[in-house]
Amino acid sequence: MSRVSGGLWKNYIAVQIYGANTNVGKTVFSTLLGLRFKNGFKEQNWKFKIQYIKPVSTGPFNDRDDNYVQRYLGQSVSTLYQFENPVSPHIAAREAKDIPNDNHLNILLQRQLRSGAHALTSSPAGWGFCIVETAGGVLSPGPSGTPQADIYRPLRLPAVLVGDHKLGGIASTISAAESLIMRGYDLDAVVCFDDQSKYQNAEYLTRYFNDKLRIPVYTIPWIPHDINSKDKHDEETSMRQYYSETSKHPDILRVASRIYKQHRERTENLESMASRTHQTIWHPFTQHKHVENPDDVLVFDSAYGDFFQVKSTSRSGEDTASNMLYAAFDGSASWWTQGLGHGDPQLALQAAYAAGRYGHIMFAGATHEPALKLAERVLKGLQNPRLTKIFYTDNGSTATEVGIKMGVRAACKHYNWNGAEEPVGVLGLKGSYHGDTIGAMDASEPCVFNEKVDWYRGRGYWFDYPTFKLKDGRWTVEPPTGMEEEFGPAQYFAEQDDIFDLETRGESPHYEAYIESILDRLVKKEGRKFGALVMEPVILGAGGMIFVDPLFQKSLARVVRRYNFATSESDLPAAKDEHAWTGLPVMFDEVFTGLYRLGRFSSASFLDVHPDISVHAKLLTGGLLPLSITAASDSIFQAFWGDEKSEALLHGHSYTAHPIGSHVASESLIRMQGLKYGPTWWQYKCNWQPGDTSALITKEQKQEKPWKSRVNDDNIWSFWSKEFVLDLSQHKRVDHVNALGSVLAVSLKDESGAGYTSSAAVGLRDALLFQKSKVQIHSRILGNVIYLMASMITKKKDIEIVEEVFKKKLDAMDQEAQ
Amino acid sequence: MSRVSGGLWKNYIAVQIYGANTNVGKTVFSTLLGLRFKNGFKEQNWKFKIQYIKPVSTGPFNDRDDNYVQRYLGQSVSTLYQFENPVSPHIAAREAKDIPNDNHLNILLQRQLRSGAHALTSSPAGWGFCIVETAGGVLSPGPSGTPQADIYRPLRLPAVLVGDHKLGGIASTISAAESLIMRGYDLDAVVCFDDQSKYQNAEYLTRYFNDKLRIPVYTIPWIPHDINSKDKHDEETSMRQYYSETSKHPDILRVASRIYKQHRERTENLESMASRTHQTIWHPFTQHKHVENPDDVLVFDSAYGDFFQVKSTSRSGEDTASNMLYAAFDGSASWWTQGLGHGDPQLALQAAYAAGRYGHIMFAGATHEPALKLAERVLKGLQNPRLTKIFYTDNGSTATEVGIKMGVRAACKHYNWNGAEEPVGVLGLKGSYHGDTIGAMDASEPCVFNEKVDWYRGRGYWFDYPTFKLKDGRWTVEPPTGMEEEFGPAQYFAEQDDIFDLETRGESPHYEAYIESILDRLVKKEGRKFGALVMEPVILGAGGMIFVDPLFQKSLARVVRRYNFATSESDLPAAKDEHAWTGLPVMFDEVFTGLYRLGRFSSASFLDVHPDISVHAKLLTGGLLPLSITAASDSIFQAFWGDEKSEALLHGHSYTAHPIGSHVASESLIRMQGLKYGPTWWQYKCNWQPGDTSALITKEQKQEKPWKSRVNDDNIWSFWSKEFVLDLSQHKRVDHVNALGSVLAVSLKDESGAGYTSSAAVGLRDALLFQKSKVQIHSRILGNVIYLMASMITKKKDIEIVEEVFKKKLDAMDQEAQ
Repeated sequence: MSRVSGGLWKNYIAVQIYGANTNVGKTVFSTLLGLRFKNGFKEQNWKFKIQYIKPVSTGPFNDRDDNYVQRYLGQSVSTLYQFENPVSPHIAAREAKDIPNDNHLNILLQRQLRSGAHALTSSPAGWGFCIVETAGGVLSPGPSGTPQADIYRPLRLPAVLVGDHKLGGIASTISAAESLIMRGYDLDAVVCFDDQSKYQNAEYLTRYFNDKLRIPVYTIPWIPHDINSKDKHDEETSMRQYYSETSKHPDILRVASRIYKQHRERTENLESMASRTHQTIWHPFTQHKHVENPDDVLVFDSAYGDFFQVKSTSRSGEDTASNMLYAAFDGSASWWTQGLGHGDPQLALQAAYAAGRYGHIMFAGATHEPALKLAERVLKGLQNPRLTKIFYTDNGSTATEVGIKMGVRAACKHYNWNGAEEPVGVLGLKGSYHGDTIGAMDASEPCVFNEKVDWYRGRGYWFDYPTFKLKDGRWTVEPPTGMEEEFGPAQYFAEQDDIFDLETRGESPHYEAYIESILDRLVKKEGRKFGALVMEPVILGAGGMIFVDPLFQKSLARVVRRYNFATSESDLPAAKDEHAWTGLPVMFDEVFTGLYRLGRFSSASFLDVHPDISVHAKLLTGGLLPLSITAASDSIFQAFWGDEKSEALLHGHSYTAHPIGSHVASESLIRMQGLKYGPTWWQYKCNWQPGDTSALITKEQKQEKPWKSRVNDDNIWSFWSKEFVLDLSQHKRVDHVNALGSVLAVSLKDESGAGYTSSAAVGLRDALLFQKSKVQIHSRILGNVIYLMASMITKKKDIEIVEEVFKKKLDAMDQEAQ
Repeated sequence: MSRVSGGLWKNYIAVQIYGANTNVGKTVFSTLLGLRFKNGFKEQNWKFKIQYIKPVSTGPFNDRDDNYVQRYLGQSVSTLYQFENPVSPHIAAREAKDIPNDNHLNILLQRQLRSGAHALTSSPAGWGFCIVETAGGVLSPGPSGTPQADIYRPLRLPAVLVGDHKLGGIASTISAAESLIMRGYDLDAVVCFDDQSKYQNAEYLTRYFNDKLRIPVYTIPWIPHDINSKDKHDEETSMRQYYSETSKHPDILRVASRIYKQHRERTENLESMASRTHQTIWHPFTQHKHVENPDDVLVFDSAYGDFFQVKSTSRSGEDTASNMLYAAFDGSASWWTQGLGHGDPQLALQAAYAAGRYGHIMFAGATHEPALKLAERVLKGLQNPRLTKIFYTDNGSTATEVGIKMGVRAACKHYNWNGAEEPVGVLGLKGSYHGDTIGAMDASEPCVFNEKVDWYRGRGYWFDYPTFKLKDGRWTVEPPTGMEEEFGPAQYFAEQDDIFDLETRGESPHYEAYIESILDRLVKKEGRKFGALVMEPVILGAGGMIFVDPLFQKSLARVVRRYNFATSESDLPAAKDEHAWTGLPVMFDEVFTGLYRLGRFSSASFLDVHPDISVHAKLLTGGLLPLSITAASDSIFQAFWGDEKSEALLHGHSYTAHPIGSHVASESLIRMQGLKYGPTWWQYKCNWQPGDTSALITKEQKQEKPWKSRVNDDNIWSFWSKEFVLDLSQHKRVDHVNALGSVLAVSLKDESGAGYTSSAAVGLRDALLFQKSKVQIHSRILGNVIYLMASMITKKKDIEIVEEVFKKKLDAMDQEAQ
């Protein structure tokens, strides 16, 4: 969790001092830097008020750096956590039985900084400078045991690294810098005390950091006395002289100027980014006429865990002393992609590993470990005996195009159709959406997304279907308006589980008869040709978060698989084996719903159907970068087998199966697969408490599950609490609600009925983001549907706060309307 | 350069021992490990023969670790570079004026390992174990100044890290491990000497490495005497006892077993990968019937610089003692993507930085620094006053689809056409190829790529055109066969420069009249509608490396821009301003030819045309991961401006403008933009020598340029030497050659004339890869064209060797045919 605003203020510079090792002179450098800022810069003709924070300190109080800083800088040190035992904070905290959690430590630090910013910059044109001195090396454990650089990451203060002047210090300084950089820190400068030794570390580091990283290195004159020296009097005299002289040293001035300059650049950059973006960027899915005000562009400084760091604006409430950034919950999981939270250091490291081992490797006629291992892992995870082959592309849309090429080709070959000359469409569902490239678009019915796309030609037929939802406190399966005759009347279920209990619900002669009658008309009467059944299992995402009755989708697949789509009498060959497709290839687009978005590896399992083609993207890389997979059965693969190259699937992007994406995807899947049995998810599934470290969940605990599971532990549950969802469904502004896995979709009542182009939910969306209560929430809307989505590691506490704020804002909206 | 085979042998384990710092016990651990392997494992009932290499050692010989190892392990140490002065190797080497280059050091080490592998495993079932002990920390500079882990990276030996037991050692150990991992090393294990101190480093590290990285940590009993102890006798007695006892310690056994197990897993994995890939992977652009033998799949262990590490097979010549890997020059620049070489550590670090700072951030209505800065950099680099907006997608195909949507919509709006109901095509060139998604495919004429794609519907008209080439030693601009009347007879030029000297060549009334006559027929006579001119400047890549006469492309753009495409009399509105498109929007697909592939930022500049839409991908990220850009003019942008959301460009992939790709792209462009003035390129442009460190190139040197530039320094040159290209063009097996920037295309004489499906070049391709001369070359072919491509940092020496081998194999092919 990281519901902490980033540490950035306009006239207040907070900088974090890290050491490449212990005993490299962090405190001495910090004191020098403090003196420099305190004495001010001639050019600017102003001085800084100084603050000095040590978040964690170990050792008896009187004997500590605090005294030292007081003596030479004339500045008291704010210590947030003080442990008596002079050992590493994680050992001291454990012994003292006082282990502050990381988030709490950040909140304390943030508060201290905030009040400092307020106090120090209260006078007109007042500037504040704050040193945050860390303990030990960059990755030395904090009290909780988490490496320091990870603990403080949500604040993302600019860092200065004090290099290691000792033998071996070149290596440890560069490695320490790399650890900071790969955690998303901006490293303003490296400083190195010049011990005049033969090691010449500073000389080497200066060149290295300049050439490789464009980061300046500054050399500071050597310290005459060790900070832990015994001879106090002698020390004090010579150190006073040292500080007096050295604080005027050109390199101290340079490093101070650099810090100041970087701060100005960062704040000015942040302030100009919205208008520069407005000038330069053509945004995806955006009617730019609707966002003519540059301030409508949200500026993101960074992100960590489930939270963005967003630039404050007049809408979010900005003043000079207040934080320039605020944390906002990423309520769309960044367009449905996030799995392990933003800025995960291990995922970043694994991305770097693959980049370092391979860069990219051309994949035609070739293989590499990340691509092969991921393919094997996905095939195993899908638990679909039909699927044997993995084809890689870059995103959901391209993977869909590949799937359609596969399915349609297989059908054309099977039925002896010439797809190039006669139209062969797909069967699908109304309101489906499979991507933005023309082929993927053509697989969806005409709608607002493709209305003005000149090359769009919808190819296929799209079925109506019953949907399910929680409406007025009742789980309901509902036919489309006016289609009771086709689908039967609305049905009510005690639990969401019951809707998915397809074994108990049995086959649906009603649904199947309806589907067959449509097919008879299309195929037998009109002679139309179809090459594949293409659908998103359970939820039609971009089409408006429509939750389809799983029994209908199952029925559709059943009917399609037994139906003869041949347009002449005799040409339906028998399927070769039990895993071969029949009727038409069935393709599932799991781009949104697969890979744990709904709590399961594959969303096909909700329907009890094994598709012949399965498409995956988004969560595949845990939320890091684009990569997609089209999995296919052997009988699909065989359709491209032939003597001619032109019979092959001649598709392949340059970065096909890029090692970075493939490797990160495997790492993400390993971690997400572990979540199934881990504490985070059990919090949602049952009343397990985070303090409880027992590996086994008792039977009693299982029975207390908020989301009851009838069939097995793998079944129907949600990150969003049952009470909250039930409550929402009875809200007078709400038409209905759905909650499955990490997805919450709230359909607001919309008198205008304008669908996608409606702005019914805009007010609520803005109210969630631009407000000052417990947490700001960044959410996305689809017409009158506002949805929220967690990552796979969202903490229950955060969900609860988000639920509380959501409810409050919904109520407020209601009151405003009255 | 890294023309060194990776260090992997089946029965010979070479492991590299790195230290988290100096003085952490590398030599003691190495000795223990050596003893363990020497004494063998009871279970397996076999012993290892031992080898011990210190690539670099500093300090007087007799006083060194070598003696120590000899004493306790009974094994002499092979030292490759010995410096007297006991300082860091980079200082010692500089002082000794003996600075071995990194590649040379690797070649020496590789040779030593290879002979060790041969000697140690010569007996039946013989196993060898080799310790390669590094000096100092992971990133301590080697003799050349390059950090050690970077020097030895081409060999990519499995690494064991000796952790730092001292205070602060937790941080330095994790950081050191991260530095290794992000350079693509496999870290087999971490070991830590247990100094029984209160720091408890081993305990922490064990948990951390297990939880975060799944890497085991082993704890080794503390060393009784310092290696540099004075009391030699006492030391020897107690150390002998220590080694005798500790080499039997369970954790030494465990770490040895782990190394062994990892080695077995790696070799077995490598050996099974081809057949597992064959089973699981559906390859891009591959007729699987043509690669039925699993051995046809190339297995890549890693890559570095311009070289792959490929698994040896029977075709490449495998035996137990020989290396399981061989280095092959990446002659297709991994499908035209590579810019900064594989495995660049700084690019890997920058990828990790963006991952650590952001992960991914949803880009609708939002902005972040990497995306904005890249957009600004690309717009500036393109130097095209028309282009003002950047739209991001994931690859060349999606960026092309976006460009077509833009262009066609702008034209339809302008000419009042309803593209959804009437066919609106594009104008292009025969043999063009823009990508694999349906929309991108539809922009190309019917060909082998789309022949069996059921949803392909070519939409447009594709012009014939004259091509240019070096043929029989003459630079020739040639009309298509039988079209002398339309384009005039073949023209000859003294230099390639002259073909691109469009100022001197002037306008071409001949070309323009021809183009107009075609347009008159299509538009005026047949009433066909066109929405954009879409073409690849200079080279049609995937279509077969066809080099188009730049004057023709310029003429086409000129005519299209002045032509009235209105299909009724009065509806051609005037252009609003000088940067607005007229006639039709002109879109350039620079996916292959842009971003320095041909030596310039934009390939449009070769044609003297400012397109209205410009598409970029491939080299954009320097060869790391997928990202693409569609740049557009304001007059294109305005076509999507309206009150309705449906009028907007409703396109956007989940990972639009992902921070990792955007940030890496900026870093790559900064570096590639620097190459223009750097030594690497000057080697090709003129006779500048690498030893010459003068920043300025003299006038005399400029005049000696192998590729003469008439217009300015930015003009026509190639990585491939003029002599070589001239020579090839006169070879009896060669029809013609082209060389521009990093691209070399050799069109072989092909009696069958089968084009794409021809296998004329297959023999040469295989001969280049499966052979034992100076360097193996991995190349790709397109029909009868074999092409080679360098990255932007390929060394002249490597190019020369590749040229030599290429020539030799071409000659051999010729002899075989006789």
